[in-house]
Amino acid sequence: MSEPTSYRIAVIGGTGPQGKGLGYRFARHGHGVVLGSRSAEKAEPVAAEVTERLAGVEGAGEVTGATNADAVAAADVVLLAVPYDGHDELVATLPLAGKTVISCVNPLAFDKRGAHGRVVNGGEGSAAESAQELAPEATVVGAFHNVSAVLLWGEEEFLDEDVLVVGDVVEAKEVAMDLAAAVTGRRGIDAGKLRLARQLEPFTAVLISINRRYKTHAGVRISGL
Amino acid sequence: MSEPTSYRIAVIGGTGPQGKGLGYRFARHGHGVVLGSRSAEKAEPVAAEVTERLAGVEGAGEVTGATNADAVAAADVVLLAVPYDGHDELVATLPLAGKTVISCVNPLAFDKRGAHGRVVNGGEGSAAESAQELAPEATVVGAFHNVSAVLLWGEEEFLDEDVLVVGDVVEAKEVAMDLAAAVTGRRGIDAGKLRLARQLEPFTAVLISINRRYKTHAGVRISGL
Repeated sequence: MSEPTSYRIAVIGGTGPQGKGLGYRFARHGHGVVLGSRSAEKAEPVAAEVTERLAGVEGAGEVTGATNADAVAAADVVLLAVPYDGHDELVATLPLAGKTVISCVNPLAFDKRGAHGRVVNGGEGSAAESAQELAPEATVVGAFHNVSAVLLWGEEEFLDEDVLVVGDVVEAKEVAMDLAAAVTGRRGIDAGKLRLARQLEPFTAVLISINRRYKTHAGVRISGL
Repeated sequence: MSEPTSYRIAVIGGTGPQGKGLGYRFARHGHGVVLGSRSAEKAEPVAAEVTERLAGVEGAGEVTGATNADAVAAADVVLLAVPYDGHDELVATLPLAGKTVISCVNPLAFDKRGAHGRVVNGGEGSAAESAQELAPEATVVGAFHNVSAVLLWGEEEFLDEDVLVVGDVVEAKEVAMDLAAAVTGRRGIDAGKLRLARQLEPFTAVLISINRRYKTHAGVRISGL
């Protein structure tokens, strides 16, 4: 595995299971991570927990906690790992201009029949596209939608999954494809334009459904590459 | 691989690449197949082509051609493998009452930015759900959306993919999960309720996008099972 670049990554929603788990994996492979939250007081103990988990890992990156805005200001790359509820309002407040923004936000709904995709913008939108509209001077890509938070925080060296990356700017996709290697042991897959986030985001509902039936943590792999 | 049951399958759209390829795979593993088309004259030469391809395959099922309506009348299981354009009108004319109907229909659109999902019913529908509404006395499941027609007609014994099956009736899902073994060498995966066809159908656009970038025939595998 080659990781030519170390990034400084702000994880918005860094105290949630997905954000904390991805932050842990990124730091484990040498990237610097600032876990962001509404208050620094909430983020700091989680950063300390991740730091403790990384004790003795050679070459691990530093993990700190900060407010979401301070985290963004200190980073090159911003991971949006927040619930879809409140997503738009939060994104609109962040100083994202000039940043590479990776959205792993899944607009899902749950009822007695299980998980399913929430309809964004009448079926012609996605959380990632909304973020791009709200932060037009940032470059938004979609990735890491389907990785299991449980496995991210688990013991396996790498997750047996592929990270699918969508976006309209190749250079920004390359960043997410690089970072995927910290999670899966291999580069992410360029899966096309940003609008295909409409497909990647709700696919998580399918995996949740499989998880319930088979009592597992299912992931997606792409065959034929 | 165990295949306890042989089905008699009508393939609607049996002269198209997906229908012909799936029909070939089903017959190769002992299922009887009637390839349906608008006219028997159009279906018969394709059935002959598949039959020729099966020459010498021990235990192969019979493959014949018929009109769509005659194909349905002769079958227990109906595979809808038609383009989404005209899908609703065609389904409404078929005698589907009492049948197990498997939809692999992908509502996709293409423009200069590539393939993407078409919005069905304002984002709250899918081809499979439309079929169920149009044929309320049939039992519709969704499956085989993402298998490559090129690989289906290719030389590999089995495709390195998983068949995801969605539906609201377990017995009907079991049929599609059984049939998947003829294509992939293992049972299909129960991926949840029929409405999750909203996710499986347009996911094909993601695979098409990967195919273009990587010059391959990508498929989906589920890890963690």
